[in-house]
Order: sequence, then structure tokens, then C-alpha cells
Amino acid sequence: MSDPALLSATEARRRIAAGTLAARDVLEAYLDRIAAREGEIHAFHYFDAAAVRAAAPAAGALHGLPIGVKDVLDTADMPAGYGSPIWDGYRPRADAAAVAWAKAAGAVVMGKTVTTEFATRQPGLTANPHNTAHTPGGSSSGSAAGVAAGFFPLAFGTQTAGSIIRPAAFCGVVGYKPSYGMIPRLGMKVMSESLDTIGVMARSVADCALFAGAVARFDLGDPDAKPGRAPRIGLCRSPVWDKAAPETILMWDRVATALANAGATLQGRELPETFRALDVAHPIVMNGESAAAMGWELAARRDGISTVLRERLEWGLAQGAAALHAAQSTFRQLQAAFPAVMEGLDVLVTPSAQGEAPEGLAWTGDPVFNSYWSALGVPCITVPAGTGPNGMPLGIQIVGRHGDDRAVLAWAQFVAAAVG
Amino acid sequence: MSDPALLSATEARRRIAAGTLAARDVLEAYLDRIAAREGEIHAFHYFDAAAVRAAAPAAGALHGLPIGVKDVLDTADMPAGYGSPIWDGYRPRADAAAVAWAKAAGAVVMGKTVTTEFATRQPGLTANPHNTAHTPGGSSSGSAAGVAAGFFPLAFGTQTAGSIIRPAAFCGVVGYKPSYGMIPRLGMKVMSESLDTIGVMARSVADCALFAGAVARFDLGDPDAKPGRAPRIGLCRSPVWDKAAPETILMWDRVATALANAGATLQGRELPETFRALDVAHPIVMNGESAAAMGWELAARRDGISTVLRERLEWGLAQGAAALHAAQSTFRQLQAAFPAVMEGLDVLVTPSAQGEAPEGLAWTGDPVFNSYWSALGVPCITVPAGTGPNGMPLGIQIVGRHGDDRAVLAWAQFVAAAVG
Repeated sequence: MSDPALLSATEARRRIAAGTLAARDVLEAYLDRIAAREGEIHAFHYFDAAAVRAAAPAAGALHGLPIGVKDVLDTADMPAGYGSPIWDGYRPRADAAAVAWAKAAGAVVMGKTVTTEFATRQPGLTANPHNTAHTPGGSSSGSAAGVAAGFFPLAFGTQTAGSIIRPAAFCGVVGYKPSYGMIPRLGMKVMSESLDTIGVMARSVADCALFAGAVARFDLGDPDAKPGRAPRIGLCRSPVWDKAAPETILMWDRVATALANAGATLQGRELPETFRALDVAHPIVMNGESAAAMGWELAARRDGISTVLRERLEWGLAQGAAALHAAQSTFRQLQAAFPAVMEGLDVLVTPSAQGEAPEGLAWTGDPVFNSYWSALGVPCITVPAGTGPNGMPLGIQIVGRHGDDRAVLAWAQFVAAAVG
Repeated sequence: MSDPALLSATEARRRIAAGTLAARDVLEAYLDRIAAREGEIHAFHYFDAAAVRAAAPAAGALHGLPIGVKDVLDTADMPAGYGSPIWDGYRPRADAAAVAWAKAAGAVVMGKTVTTEFATRQPGLTANPHNTAHTPGGSSSGSAAGVAAGFFPLAFGTQTAGSIIRPAAFCGVVGYKPSYGMIPRLGMKVMSESLDTIGVMARSVADCALFAGAVARFDLGDPDAKPGRAPRIGLCRSPVWDKAAPETILMWDRVATALANAGATLQGRELPETFRALDVAHPIVMNGESAAAMGWELAARRDGISTVLRERLEWGLAQGAAALHAAQSTFRQLQAAFPAVMEGLDVLVTPSAQGEAPEGLAWTGDPVFNSYWSALGVPCITVPAGTGPNGMPLGIQIVGRHGDDRAVLAWAQFVAAAVG
């Protein structure tokens, strides 16, 4: 019998439900992977194999499926640290709402996965499973690396700028940032209320849909179902195409050819110039709202904040509340304007990141190809799209209209199949 | 020398800064009021006079001013209960962001004020200081009653439907629900992410502006400054005028006459029929999002939820995620449509509540005159507007455009002066 840790979550679930696979064997297969490689990957902020084995998963759509929980989401039975020494040893009383719904659907929490400091820039110790000399990306570092290393088939991430899509692309897995607001944030250490979005990572689009759908109690469809037609795709180099690495430029042509060969209708479609206002508005909202949210840490635990984060928060405060409100208003205007950009298209396809994961663990990479979509609150999915010059994974991003998650997932699977 | 507890916060602050009044004397004056009446008012979930006296307030815009903190906002040095036995004895590690900014500005936290269960329907023990046989309203019951009883000049409230404006009106104080998003929610027990808004209560509009401005680090102006012109006011009976009590109908004519006498330009201005979609959308968003946020309580502490709340949450879940997303979309559409309703006007004036505070403590009254404005995310201020047949206070509500808080506060003071 094949290794249960190689099965997709969707397939493992099917076999568990059919009685041909024991949930216990799935769990042990993943625990074996953790035992073998966690020492070099450092995906976990907290992991306790005995506690994991003692869990009695509920019946439900995720029965027996192991999940990783990014350590900005509380769990009632594990410490939370939010990637900061300030919160060291903190024991929340309750599960975050997203974790509670996952458990209620039968998921088994394998542990808390490493986040950068408060899901911002300062990294943890996590390494990229494809080459441990390279960053896994961030801020959802441990979740992306853990899925890639086979520590769990499903994981929670969160995104403010590019914290789901970028690490998923760097680690060669699928990342799904749902429409803003789909998964409840209670029990999350929210930094930017206008931007922070809980999402998921997995090894397939279908697994992402299974997991996110169960947590949001929303039928996200079956992305593996054969679509009745080919998609109309807008190829969007995005306003920051000049930041694309050579491997991304090469990939771009490869992806276009593969999509055309698969029958997609393709056209170029760029964001109108007005959307460049987000270049200014996104950092003001992100850092201004984060600084406001960090009122307690700034007042009472200032020395525990890293220099890089403190500088960003002070920059955010220095912009002033009037500039923050104006930037929030820019978000609302461009969110309302975005559907017109999508006119006649099913989805946009756009780079997931600048290129391969950078070497070194001191920097998780630049979210420049992600911030527009985060500010617009639209669903984004990254799927693997080959490798770069160092043999590290590349991703391609599928973006759609707010609320159109089901279709965007389906077309993301079309892209994954065409490109993969 | 007059009783410092009778001074407005703005005036007390001026005298403290000028050295003509000791912050200590302000504090003791309020502590005296608490000692005299808390036994019959029950404004506090938690109060410790010794701890209050031991506080060393920071320098800042609120230096030495006592505040009440609704018990859905965490404090680092007091228990939190969220109005529910489920959270009994919980000791948060950190201050909520709003509390941290208030403390950083020099405020002294007097205690945690009573909230209804998770800021929903099931009331606490708080009584209305104007007549303890009547409800103070809810969900910000203790904050409204505490300001009215002179326990503190400033208090935090939160609103999802009518939880700031209604209790403030019932208790004869000023309540201010800012534009959605103005005050950060980190460390608040958020129920409905699309609706929940932190706001303030005080005895004057200027005190509300002082407090909220310091917490949001935003200059809300001086509502007491003489405006250069008279306002253009839309008299909005609102779509639920048939729910107005006789005393509200009488008040309506009194208010219109007073505003006309004060020089305001008046015209009738009703919400277009399309806004009645909020009758359906508001409860779906409120109860659907609240149920999603209560994932942990529903899964792990179900027996601790009151019957009335459990029924509401189950109703919210039963509507389904698709209906929730559609209702959220209705919010966005009508929020975008609202500025056109305000065309040619500075503010709308509309009832704050059905009428006087109902007799009895088992029901905090109906938010029917508040839900539209909460769904629209617009700034709302209630100011006192006489009394009803039982001698209980009435309020009149001033509503404006999202982000236009400074002007709305100024015109609220115009209304308060005209009507008062």
C-alpha cells in the first residue's frame, strides 16, 4: 500500500470515509515525515506528537486530516507566540474561530507553524524544504514549508501583503487567499483590519477548496470537475513587471503557451493606471492600521518589537490618521472599480512572486506582486509552474472577482493542469 | 470649589493642564459617586478602587480623566467576561488597542462596565440611573449608565445594531459611533466583523470628540467652536417611523421647531426604498458573522450560551454562507449609494430610539432606529432631547457621511445646543 502522506487530502478523506484507510495511519504517516525532517525545516513553533496522537477528531468533511495552524491563530490547547518574544508562553483560552470550525469538521491540529514577527517582515528559523539554504517565504513560513515537506496536507496561512501566495509559490505548493472576509478572524492576531485575510495552503487546488470550504461552511465546488468550457483569461503582467526576475519572464511565455494549448482564450489585460494609487495606499493602510492595532505592544512592550518592525510602525503612525482614512477610501474606490477591469474575463493570470525563493533565511522576499490583489480583497490562488535556474519552484497566480471564489478555484485548477 | 465630577472632561482637562485642579481630586470625586450609587446601578463588571487609586496616568490629551471600559474590550490588569459565564475569570494578557491608546493618552481606567452577553440581547444587571426600574439599554449598558450616574465622564461602547446610540439615549448622555473602522478593534471580542464599531459616550459632544480623537489619534475638531454658518439638515423619519413611540412623534416636531429657530435649513429626506434591503441583510450579516466568530463557544462551550443567543446564532448559520455573502454585498452596494442620499445636506437628523427606556431590566429595547446606520458604517451621534411621559430621557440622532466625523460632531453640537 502506498504512503498515505502522498495522497491528496481529498483522496485520503474519500478512503477514510469508505473505510479503506484508517485516519490513524494517515496521521502516523505525517508524523513520520515530521520526525524525519523537522530538525532541518523548523516549520513548527509548537509541536507535541503525544498530544496529536491523543486527539479524537470529530466526524465531518475533514475527519482525520492533519492541519498546520499558523501561529497568529489561537488554539485552546497550545501556546501562541505570534512570532514575537513579547507573547512568549502565552496560552489562549479559546480556539480561533477558524481553528474551531476546522476541528468541528474533523481536522487534527498538528501544531502551530512558524510565522514571521506578527506576520510582518522579521523571519523565523524556517527553511525551504526544496533547499534549506533558501527562505520558504513569509509570513506564513511554517505552513508553506510544512505542506511542502509533507508534515500535513493542509495548513492555515494569513495574508496582508503577500504572506500566503509568496511562500506557497516559493515552496512549490498551492496557496489560496479567499475573498476578503470569507473566513472569520476572531482569535487571530489581526494587524491590518482592512487587509488581513485568512487562507489555506495544500498540495492541490481541490484540497484548498475542501479545507477552506469546510472552515467557511461554504460549498467551493469541486475544482477537479471537468469544466464545460475553456476560460477567458487576462494575462496581467501587472504594474510591477519590471520587478520580475528572468525566470519569471521565461515562465510567462511558457504559461501563455500552455494555456493556449489547453484551449483558453487569452488576451493581455493590465490594471488601469489609476490602480497605481495602491502603491501609496497599501503601505499606509498596512502600517498605519498595524501600528494602531499594536497599541499595547508599543506602549507596554516596546523593547520586544524588532527594529525593522518598530520603524515600520512609527512610519505608519507618522503618516497620520487623515492619510490613513484617505488610503482606506482609495481601497474602497478601487475595489468598486475592479469588476470593470475584469469585463469579459473569467480570471486574470499574473506572477505569484518576483522569481525563485531568495537564498538565505534573513529575508522572506518581496510581496510586490501580491499587494495590489490584497488591497483589492479579491481571491488569489498560486499554483506551481515549473522551476527556476536554481531548481527552486515557481508559481503562477490566478486572480478573480471578490466573491467569485468557486469559479476562481475551478479556473486555477485548469491553469494548474495546463501548466503542470 | 465646585464638584470636579460635574465638570465636562474637556473642562477638567483644561484645569488639570493649567494646574488649577488636581487629577487626584477629579478621580476621588468620581470614586465618591461610585461608592454612593454603584450598589443600585450595577454599572461595573469589575471595579477595584484601590487599583484605580494606584494608577499613574501618563501625560497626554486625556491625562487624569477617568474612563469606563465596556467588558468586550480587554485590559491587561483586569478580568474580562464578555457578559458570558463562558469567559468567567478570564485574565487577558494585553490591553485592547483602544484601551492602550486611551491609557497612553493619560486616561485612568475605572473598571470594566457591564455588557449584555457578548454584546447581544441577554442583559446584565445594570439599571438606568434616571429610574432604576427601567433598562439603561444595551449592549453598552454599564458604560451608558456609568456616564449618566457620574461614575466616569468618558466610556467606551461598541455597536453592532444600536448598542451605543440606544443606551446613550435611554440614559440621557451623548453617544458617538464613529465611522466604521476609525478605532482599532484588536483585543475586542468582535462578533460581526462587518458591523462592530468601537465608540464612546460622554456628557457632551465635545467630550466625545476629545476622547475618540485621542484614541484614534485623529483631530476631530472642537465641536464647541462656533460654526461659520448654519447647517443644511435632512429630517429623516427613517423607514421604521411606524415603530416610533408617541413621545418620539411629539419630540420630532419639537426638534424641528428648535432647529428652524436656530437657523438650520431643513428639509425632509428619506432613505430610498432600495435601502429596505437592509431589513433583510442586517440580521443575516449580524447573526451569520457572529455565529462564525463564535465557532469555539458553539463547539466547546455550547451550554454556556443563553437560549436566546443560541437561537440567533443557529438562525444565522441556517441562512447559509451564500446568503451571508449576498447580504455583505448588499452592505457594500448601499454604503456606496449613501453619499447620493446626502446630496445637498450636511447631516441627517433621525430618532435615536423608539422612545423612552422600557420599564424592567429583562429587555434592553429595540435597535430598529439604529440598524440602518450601523449597516451603512456612517458616523452617528445621539444627543439628549428632552424627556418622555415617564420623565425618562429621549435622544435625537445625527448621522452623516462615512469619514465626515469632524463635521458630524460639529453639527451634532449645533443640534444639542438648539434642542437642549
